[in-house]
Amino acid sequence: MKFARFSRNGQTSFGVVQDGRVKALRSDLFEQPDYSGEEYALDDLQLLAPVQPGKLVCVGLNYRLHAKESGLPVPDEPMLFMCSPDAIIATGDTIVLDSDTDRIDFEAEIAIVVSKTCKNVPSEQAANFIFGYTCANDVSNRDLQRKDGQFTRAKSFDTYKPMGPWIETELDPDNVAIELRQNGETRQSSNTSDMIFSIGRIFEFVSSIMTLNAGDVIITGTPSGVGPMKGGDVIEISIEGIGSLSNKVASRQQ
Amino acid sequence: MKFARFSRNGQTSFGVVQDGRVKALRSDLFEQPDYSGEEYALDDLQLLAPVQPGKLVCVGLNYRLHAKESGLPVPDEPMLFMCSPDAIIATGDTIVLDSDTDRIDFEAEIAIVVSKTCKNVPSEQAANFIFGYTCANDVSNRDLQRKDGQFTRAKSFDTYKPMGPWIETELDPDNVAIELRQNGETRQSSNTSDMIFSIGRIFEFVSSIMTLNAGDVIITGTPSGVGPMKGGDVIEISIEGIGSLSNKVASRQQ
Repeated sequence: MKFARFSRNGQTSFGVVQDGRVKALRSDLFEQPDYSGEEYALDDLQLLAPVQPGKLVCVGLNYRLHAKESGLPVPDEPMLFMCSPDAIIATGDTIVLDSDTDRIDFEAEIAIVVSKTCKNVPSEQAANFIFGYTCANDVSNRDLQRKDGQFTRAKSFDTYKPMGPWIETELDPDNVAIELRQNGETRQSSNTSDMIFSIGRIFEFVSSIMTLNAGDVIITGTPSGVGPMKGGDVIEISIEGIGSLSNKVASRQQ
Repeated sequence: MKFARFSRNGQTSFGVVQDGRVKALRSDLFEQPDYSGEEYALDDLQLLAPVQPGKLVCVGLNYRLHAKESGLPVPDEPMLFMCSPDAIIATGDTIVLDSDTDRIDFEAEIAIVVSKTCKNVPSEQAANFIFGYTCANDVSNRDLQRKDGQFTRAKSFDTYKPMGPWIETELDPDNVAIELRQNGETRQSSNTSDMIFSIGRIFEFVSSIMTLNAGDVIITGTPSGVGPMKGGDVIEISIEGIGSLSNKVASRQQ
């Protein structure tokens, strides 16, 4: 099922997306779905980011071809960092660049949404603690990333973590196409089967370090083809079985 | 005032600490204090970590002498990273080392607790958005820190962020003694006046990147004298005008 979050008449709700319609829920994301009976055309709704995580954990280098294009060795375990959850915006929202001169890149990623509190989850049990998956853009100021060494600042500016359009709960995440288009032209086109560390392995690794809670999000690294954005661009990320996340880009000065 | 959080008869409350007594509050941390009329001896209460942040933002190198002992140049702007808020424990809780062979260090730090949602706060207005200050231990696995490059894993293991004992709301944070004792012996002894970036400057910098919310915590770097811990140690951090945070250390195998 596809769970979207939306705002209507000043009230925020979740809903189940099917055939271009959204069936509104009275229930919260991690509860048994309780339909309110209200139903809307998807096009009539302004979607919100589908999740507001406590923690936003990120994995560095995790696609073989991206490691190759970056001239970096394939890592022997996932490399983690964290970003501000307040950087998250919805599909349709605008990415506002923090600089008009720095190189600021898009990065298509598949995001894991945690379903309940857990610690030390073995890879093969990870699915029991995963609510679903969504698309994410891990927007990155390359100049600040290089300057700081630590990735947090470069990737945590408000609006730098578009996520959506909704959460898909029925997906085999280890073999789906992931694609990014910039103004309609394909820039990234890969498959999660090129991941160095699978979704299960990432979940095991992160949960061996820190307690994870319902709603926490792990973004899992980007495939090859990353590149710079500029004001006026439209960036669209599509993941097979999930859907498409689309965001305009605004320069700082606009 | 000193705001502590505690649990009693299965109920969690805040209270105001004065002269070894805790006056319980019906109100939440950021509300106008509303006293319940109940009062306890501090020694009879098990304190909890005084805050449960959404975001835990950390500043790297921020004391001149620590930069010198680390052989690193004084940075021209704060270097940020983020850690798991689930790593936070209270005074009296036990730090459980993630490895029995890696070098795992203590780091005494003063922590800022944010009072309300804000963005782009100038240095001289920071105090209007700061609720108060507490003591923090930024426990760090040096081997993983070096291996990963990114600091998040090395510093995010559950129990690696002791904080407390309470939040002091009336403090001039830029000129207070900060001290750490390991089994009674002084290891770190400095003053926040040795900071490269003041509390106000740090607040301005962090809030220029990300929206901050009530309860978010920024830890502000450690002075010189960091060193390794082992199972059985007791680590006590004292900050002038706040109080003392004390934690036992347990090896992984215990």
